[in-house]
Amino acid sequence: MAPTTNTRVLFASIPKDFPIPGETTVYDTSQQIDLEHVPLNGGFLIKTLVLSIDPYMRGRMRAPKTKSYSTPFTLGAPLAGYGVGVVLRSEASDVAPGKYVYGDSIPHQQYAVLANMDRFNFLERDPKLPWTVYVGAAGMPGKTAYMGWKEFSRAKKGETAFITTGAGPVGSMVIQLAKRDGLKVIASAGSEEKVKFMKSIGADVAFNYKTTDTREVLAREGPIDIYWDNVGGDIFDAALEHANIFGRFLMCGMISGYNTGHEPTKNMHLTFGKSLTINGILHSHLLHKHNAEFYSKIPALLANGEIKYTEEVHHGLESVGEAILRVVIVVAEE
Amino acid sequence: MAPTTNTRVLFASIPKDFPIPGETTVYDTSQQIDLEHVPLNGGFLIKTLVLSIDPYMRGRMRAPKTKSYSTPFTLGAPLAGYGVGVVLRSEASDVAPGKYVYGDSIPHQQYAVLANMDRFNFLERDPKLPWTVYVGAAGMPGKTAYMGWKEFSRAKKGETAFITTGAGPVGSMVIQLAKRDGLKVIASAGSEEKVKFMKSIGADVAFNYKTTDTREVLAREGPIDIYWDNVGGDIFDAALEHANIFGRFLMCGMISGYNTGHEPTKNMHLTFGKSLTINGILHSHLLHKHNAEFYSKIPALLANGEIKYTEEVHHGLESVGEAILRVVIVVAEE
Repeated sequence: MAPTTNTRVLFASIPKDFPIPGETTVYDTSQQIDLEHVPLNGGFLIKTLVLSIDPYMRGRMRAPKTKSYSTPFTLGAPLAGYGVGVVLRSEASDVAPGKYVYGDSIPHQQYAVLANMDRFNFLERDPKLPWTVYVGAAGMPGKTAYMGWKEFSRAKKGETAFITTGAGPVGSMVIQLAKRDGLKVIASAGSEEKVKFMKSIGADVAFNYKTTDTREVLAREGPIDIYWDNVGGDIFDAALEHANIFGRFLMCGMISGYNTGHEPTKNMHLTFGKSLTINGILHSHLLHKHNAEFYSKIPALLANGEIKYTEEVHHGLESVGEAILRVVIVVAEE
Repeated sequence: MAPTTNTRVLFASIPKDFPIPGETTVYDTSQQIDLEHVPLNGGFLIKTLVLSIDPYMRGRMRAPKTKSYSTPFTLGAPLAGYGVGVVLRSEASDVAPGKYVYGDSIPHQQYAVLANMDRFNFLERDPKLPWTVYVGAAGMPGKTAYMGWKEFSRAKKGETAFITTGAGPVGSMVIQLAKRDGLKVIASAGSEEKVKFMKSIGADVAFNYKTTDTREVLAREGPIDIYWDNVGGDIFDAALEHANIFGRFLMCGMISGYNTGHEPTKNMHLTFGKSLTINGILHSHLLHKHNAEFYSKIPALLANGEIKYTEEVHHGLESVGEAILRVVIVVAEE
């Protein structure tokens, strides 16, 4: 078989603030690959099916010397992220052709040779769910929500939770987990459409933080026992002000700062008077405890509609640049 | 017996920043009390022996409308705080004359009628310890250190702890508890004398943060697994930067802000990547779990010298105004 084009999305330059498709990321068709003969070196060849565009990826588009919890992308090399691939050929004894693999190191290219399963797990698809769900509600964002909630919320029936970016893939899962645990849920997002969606999945109080004062809502509907933070800054401060004694704060990411720097927190002095607990969530630190349980429970609930999800799907590797920009901009403005 | 003067320290006006003895607090000798006949209304009469001046008291010197975890002092009424009193007369069946009581609601006056034991516990003094220790290392500050460490540190032998205001009554106890648990201890304070003291009680690395760069010390001696915060602001940010994965942050008070407002925290976005846990400590929320154990262990260790302490003792109610100012200023500048 003749070599085929292995389309890729390359990290071309470090964004100053927002990524620029065609400049900070470049869609590239220059690489050829011979699918039958490309050396596997003991690994396996996949065809990439689905790639997830997640806010943390912006953090990887940085200079190598800047430290962060994620490793920086390499300039000139493809982006990489969560994705699903199907195995085409394999020299690894534990990896059979036809298997589906999921993990955070799928290169943004049509075909890729992976060395081993270290950063991947096999997936079996529920026939009612498309593969895209396995990078969303049944993937890293869903796991972040499920494992963070499970590990740190100490949720008790009748308590009140405040969940930010409640229409996003993480927040919407958290809303539904909180409702399943019998909590009153206050949820915020940045548009009327999102407010409607958050109500449709069970939020008792849903508001648009751009048009409604967060502190007024929390003063009326709080105090809050659990706060799920995706935003940081002033809303985090408002949550500290309206936290109940023994409140639990789950820090999942501060989306607002990925492009333009993080807003400072002014109210950390409220943590001791109220005996608050704040936990940073990184789902990869929780996988060993909750991954099996997650896959045994959540995809089935998604498939039968007990837990709802939305997804925004773009098609083609050539859309990655825009998708990153869109995700980043959508989220940053939310 | 003729009435005697009941000297008092009154809260006279709200400080703008630093309290001013004679203006924000006033030493008062106008009240008379007849110790034999003053009505007890079912309560008991104490003579005040020892009063503790603690940084949180500055937070109580505020307008009633400003919310905080402590109740505000009443203008024109005596200050109140942790102290030890001896019972002179009693109408309460559970309170015998001659007993010693400890609690956070001892009025700053020579004699006082207390309604019941709700906010007090009885003390038995170790003959080797003066009463003053029971408002310090064997009182609220010691309890804060012991109970906070016990409840939240999850200390493991070989880990590294960074303890701020390590020469203070709380910090010096924490240093010694950390060393007893087999940790490497980095400790900071604001003078060479304090550095010497911190070394004398076992700190492996002790430094004066006014003359030594905190980040340099932490870069060299860290990363830190446990951070004991008494200061907030930039040092808290530095600790976030140099925290190890799964670090525990124990928030005990932010002394720097009591007079002049709290410095913002810039690095909360580091909490999720490192899966940090931050716990606010208020010892009164932990008493039910650890108080009996504290009294059974700590006074004996203080008496036999296994745990060391320092105290600064002023004499006479007329010194309260200066003591507050001094404590506040000393601590704020530390």
